[in-house]
Amino acid sequence: MTDAVVEVTRGSVVESRHRVHIAVAHAERGLVASAGNAGLVSFVRSAIKMFQALPLVEGGGVEQFDLTTEELAVCTASHGGEPFHVAAARSILRKADASEDLLACGPHPPMHPSSADALAACHQTPGRIHNNCSGKHAGMLAFATLRGWPHADYHRPYHPVQQRVIDTIAHWMDVPVSAIVIGVDGCGLPTFALPLDRVAHGCARIAAAATDGGSAAARVIDAMLTRPAYVAGTDRLCTDLMVAAGGRLFAKVGAEGYYCVGVPHARLGIALKVEDGAKRAAEPAVLAVLRALNLVNDSELDILARYARPDILNTRGEIVGMLRVSLPALG
Amino acid sequence: MTDAVVEVTRGSVVESRHRVHIAVAHAERGLVASAGNAGLVSFVRSAIKMFQALPLVEGGGVEQFDLTTEELAVCTASHGGEPFHVAAARSILRKADASEDLLACGPHPPMHPSSADALAACHQTPGRIHNNCSGKHAGMLAFATLRGWPHADYHRPYHPVQQRVIDTIAHWMDVPVSAIVIGVDGCGLPTFALPLDRVAHGCARIAAAATDGGSAAARVIDAMLTRPAYVAGTDRLCTDLMVAAGGRLFAKVGAEGYYCVGVPHARLGIALKVEDGAKRAAEPAVLAVLRALNLVNDSELDILARYARPDILNTRGEIVGMLRVSLPALG
Repeated sequence: MTDAVVEVTRGSVVESRHRVHIAVAHAERGLVASAGNAGLVSFVRSAIKMFQALPLVEGGGVEQFDLTTEELAVCTASHGGEPFHVAAARSILRKADASEDLLACGPHPPMHPSSADALAACHQTPGRIHNNCSGKHAGMLAFATLRGWPHADYHRPYHPVQQRVIDTIAHWMDVPVSAIVIGVDGCGLPTFALPLDRVAHGCARIAAAATDGGSAAARVIDAMLTRPAYVAGTDRLCTDLMVAAGGRLFAKVGAEGYYCVGVPHARLGIALKVEDGAKRAAEPAVLAVLRALNLVNDSELDILARYARPDILNTRGEIVGMLRVSLPALG
Repeated sequence: MTDAVVEVTRGSVVESRHRVHIAVAHAERGLVASAGNAGLVSFVRSAIKMFQALPLVEGGGVEQFDLTTEELAVCTASHGGEPFHVAAARSILRKADASEDLLACGPHPPMHPSSADALAACHQTPGRIHNNCSGKHAGMLAFATLRGWPHADYHRPYHPVQQRVIDTIAHWMDVPVSAIVIGVDGCGLPTFALPLDRVAHGCARIAAAATDGGSAAARVIDAMLTRPAYVAGTDRLCTDLMVAAGGRLFAKVGAEGYYCVGVPHARLGIALKVEDGAKRAAEPAVLAVLRALNLVNDSELDILARYARPDILNTRGEIVGMLRVSLPALG
């Protein structure tokens, strides 16, 4: 095992270091590359929202509620709370006959700064609909409506909605349900502790399944790839990466330095975790991995330069350092 | 070398890990305890502001400008931009006949949230005086006035103010000036890359010197210990720790997970760096080190519980995890 490190420089000195654990899996060939501890057990947080959206699609929810591609994409989102995200989440709730008050996620200001400022300027208090997970929650409430299950407690691990989600995770990651340790996510939903290589395996499998146009997996991944702005938003790596790569791969961030990527044509899945949870390190690291695997090219990376090799500015606006990735040969 | 780690838990799982490097020095006996890499070279950032304030005091600036103890304390501060901090920094500038426009630090909103909100509510734009380093900058402008040096470029490494600061750092840390690598700090001043054990040594020496009532070191440390609110502010560990410990020790945070502590009666200095730069890990780590060395007791730690063992809350306000420190036997 060799270590991947994101170095934070200031002038000529490395000021801080982030260790990164990486697993790359092929849908049929298993683990094909890794760095650090590919078996690291950690919570997947929001990085696997594409799997959490599957039960609704598999159950026929898209047809039943006449969900648009944008609405399906926002079910997989850690969105910025921009007006179009909020509108999509509200539309799902309306179609599913579920009130906004039912959302179990807590309120927080939109992650997208201008959208947060706009709310504040109108003296509007941020609501649960602005939570970056509100699309996922709206999709789960719609799934409960679809099945005729109570909306109450839909976010609890014992609720049938979450039981179907856990079964879905176990299926795609190829682990027994009994091996999945559950924690409470930032938005109140169950989150799942899994080995990194199992998550890469799941991403590889859903990526491969996405090449089969009729499947639920294909519909979810297609929504992400064709409506990337709904998966994250303005000035966000997930969105900008999916756009820059021309829809060749899907990308999903999770809290505490988690990232998942799937590459349908290559039948590859990538799971990456910054040991200390730093988002600032996850972004350049995931791009370095994609470059090392020849899954993005230099001109695509140039478009993403501010994520791949971000400058560190001081309060005077001077560039005083940068982040750079030191990656071992992946193998 | 054994590792110190701050674990970030969620439910029953460790979700993220921060590695911490620690050096503890005695003024005469040298390095007495360590964890991780005590020779780690890193920027000291704001954690050594007590040394940066020394040239002004040694030069007679306190008498010349009739500086109050509060004003001297704010020269060592990473303050919250609370009204009393801003007033103290402005008063130094006024006494030193230096305009606020001369401050080289960039503007940022007060770190103290209510003070930032209060500015915003009055539609006031945050200024350079609200920069957490404005007290240090005001003190340096006063030093330039005192010596009759130009105010222009006082923040550049070649200016005589900074040359005296570098000499001071070299003296207390016992390193040649030529061995100090300079970077640009968040506020535009030079910052210094030094081995952790050298910084601990400097903290031990200034702590020991603080027991000699007449010295410049004693006056600076006394200002920190008797006016701790001016060194940081409301809801800040440096201030709350100095208060809880009844002035037995001084504490100074720096950016990127740095912390310095000095204990005059024990002639000890502590320097601590979180490898990845996370502030959230530095706070519980420094308190764990102080407890392990019997420099704070359990009832003092109870008062500081929210820094020592912070809960992790989600957007619903539920406690979903915590931070805990795993410290090897220090020795």
